[in-house]
Amino acid sequence: MKAEIDPWGKGGVKNYDKICKDLGVGKFEKFAKKLSKPPMCIKRGLVYGEKDFSKIAEAIKKKKRFALLTGLMPSGKFHLGHMALAQQIVYYQSLGAEIYIVVADVESFLTRGISFEEARKIAIEEYVLNYIALGLKPSKCKIYFQSEGGNEYNLLGKIVANKTTLNELKCVYGDIDTGKMVSVFTQVADILYPQIKKSIPTVVPVGFDQLPHVNLTRDIAKKLGKYILPSGTFHKFMPGLKGGKMSSSDPSSYIALTDGPKEVAKKINKYAFSGGQETLELHRKKGGNPDVDVSFQYLKFMFEESDAKLKQLEKDYRSGKLLTGELKKYTIEKINKFLKSHQAKRIKARKSFKRFFK
Amino acid sequence: MKAEIDPWGKGGVKNYDKICKDLGVGKFEKFAKKLSKPPMCIKRGLVYGEKDFSKIAEAIKKKKRFALLTGLMPSGKFHLGHMALAQQIVYYQSLGAEIYIVVADVESFLTRGISFEEARKIAIEEYVLNYIALGLKPSKCKIYFQSEGGNEYNLLGKIVANKTTLNELKCVYGDIDTGKMVSVFTQVADILYPQIKKSIPTVVPVGFDQLPHVNLTRDIAKKLGKYILPSGTFHKFMPGLKGGKMSSSDPSSYIALTDGPKEVAKKINKYAFSGGQETLELHRKKGGNPDVDVSFQYLKFMFEESDAKLKQLEKDYRSGKLLTGELKKYTIEKINKFLKSHQAKRIKARKSFKRFFK
Repeated sequence: MKAEIDPWGKGGVKNYDKICKDLGVGKFEKFAKKLSKPPMCIKRGLVYGEKDFSKIAEAIKKKKRFALLTGLMPSGKFHLGHMALAQQIVYYQSLGAEIYIVVADVESFLTRGISFEEARKIAIEEYVLNYIALGLKPSKCKIYFQSEGGNEYNLLGKIVANKTTLNELKCVYGDIDTGKMVSVFTQVADILYPQIKKSIPTVVPVGFDQLPHVNLTRDIAKKLGKYILPSGTFHKFMPGLKGGKMSSSDPSSYIALTDGPKEVAKKINKYAFSGGQETLELHRKKGGNPDVDVSFQYLKFMFEESDAKLKQLEKDYRSGKLLTGELKKYTIEKINKFLKSHQAKRIKARKSFKRFFK
Repeated sequence: MKAEIDPWGKGGVKNYDKICKDLGVGKFEKFAKKLSKPPMCIKRGLVYGEKDFSKIAEAIKKKKRFALLTGLMPSGKFHLGHMALAQQIVYYQSLGAEIYIVVADVESFLTRGISFEEARKIAIEEYVLNYIALGLKPSKCKIYFQSEGGNEYNLLGKIVANKTTLNELKCVYGDIDTGKMVSVFTQVADILYPQIKKSIPTVVPVGFDQLPHVNLTRDIAKKLGKYILPSGTFHKFMPGLKGGKMSSSDPSSYIALTDGPKEVAKKINKYAFSGGQETLELHRKKGGNPDVDVSFQYLKFMFEESDAKLKQLEKDYRSGKLLTGELKKYTIEKINKFLKSHQAKRIKARKSFKRFFK
């Protein structure tokens, strides 16, 4: 049996609209429009799908309690792909969400052989410090390690196993072996973690590849009775430099938030997939394609605050007035300006990170 | 796919010799003969099979460290079936074993809906107090609850899941669903529990129905590398009063260690399956069959210390000289004499049980 989405796969997701239709996912647009000052990734549609978000929208509107649960896999560098998610965390915190961040150190130990000590270091150096620099506050924020989740959390994983069946898992994930099954039970327990003590509306912002976990958790939560079914938002993949997926194991596929200005310039100039034409003449004549241009995507979803400027860039690039080299140059400037400020904040963040581990 | 033994089944095991041959289990007899003053259940062959016991025999002989791991399912009354196992625990402790007793409260919660509070009460009232009355000492003895096993223990269960496959589980257990899988991973982690900090030869005395868990644990321990493969001993089932299995849910199938003298007399007289003939005349002529007589089995494996007396009883019963009523009367006297003394010890045990939970 083969499932439509493989959360452990490298392939990503091809047809978002088909997935939304097949798996009962709504368009996030209608909620995004009503949110106050959302980050670019929400405003400009990177966050594309939603499930049961209305109860979160209502909690925001009525200033009622709600939680956000997100996870991080402590391996490799924190890069632009992670940033889009981090900005959502920080944004929902500003709207009143209680933040729960699970460090998937058991997962990284089991699947990648990363020791718990190393995982802790990566989690802090690469993730938490960047989260703080991006605006995460320690109040109403709990960061926990899977390896230290405690007895109630571990029990929940076992309860979950007892409330599902092998056939159900095969329907959701295709062929699945025991190690991945336990990983699924753990992730379902993570998604319900904010509700261990008391039920609370919970939003889980994830990439489309993690959609099966959210759906399965909702099915299991329904059977368990005592939980509010968790809501999800689903973002499209931020393209890697070369157009494919950003991969922690391939530095030429991403820009890390700790990269220096020269490294950024080199990576964009050398690797960033361009929507431009092969020759200058052809480009002037036919124009470029911003929809597949990686630099343009980065500007759109992360670095160009001004809607007017973005529209102008798009128009000029499509017409051929703006050349690929010029677009890349502008992108490099924007990224480096951001990173300079961000990296200064990251150094300051070191003073306060301990407050996040209560 | 159907496995030869179902550890969750009610059927028990039919042909012990076939199981031993098929699953590579040796006869315990050769070790039993060399043990000093073993309890009746060992001396008289109730403990019938063994796996890799030689390393335990060696540890005993050379006075080296070794551990015993056993589990208890906190549900129902502590009865004669449990006593045979408890006597083995106490005996191995006297030979120097470090004792680990896991209270399977997660298991009883998941499969029988017993709350953790209730499980704790049953574990203490029905099991621990009886263990102590039977001679268990608090030194070198750790009793732990699955629900409080801690992070290392829970992690071990997940590591186990990653070191096995669905096909392997199907070979061992037949068709198996997710809840039972997690139960298997938990039990494998329990069997390795004494070795979490440091590897140590471990014996797991269990009924034949639990043999698959021991075998699987050995296979997984082999893959994990850092553990000494656990040894097992396998006892035959102590027959229930009516000849079938003792079942906690059917009081007419067992004698509980808290039963009073009248209850014992009534249960033996009314329910105990007899190997005698249908009429007195026929019995005198043909003789009885002690091999299927439940009273005789109880005397043999638990209550008749004297080999000479047991031999005489067997001979007289087989010849027809001893009548079923007489055999039952003798059995009732022996059981009640034991229980009177045991129940007095059990009352005293209440003073010290807290020392077992460190």
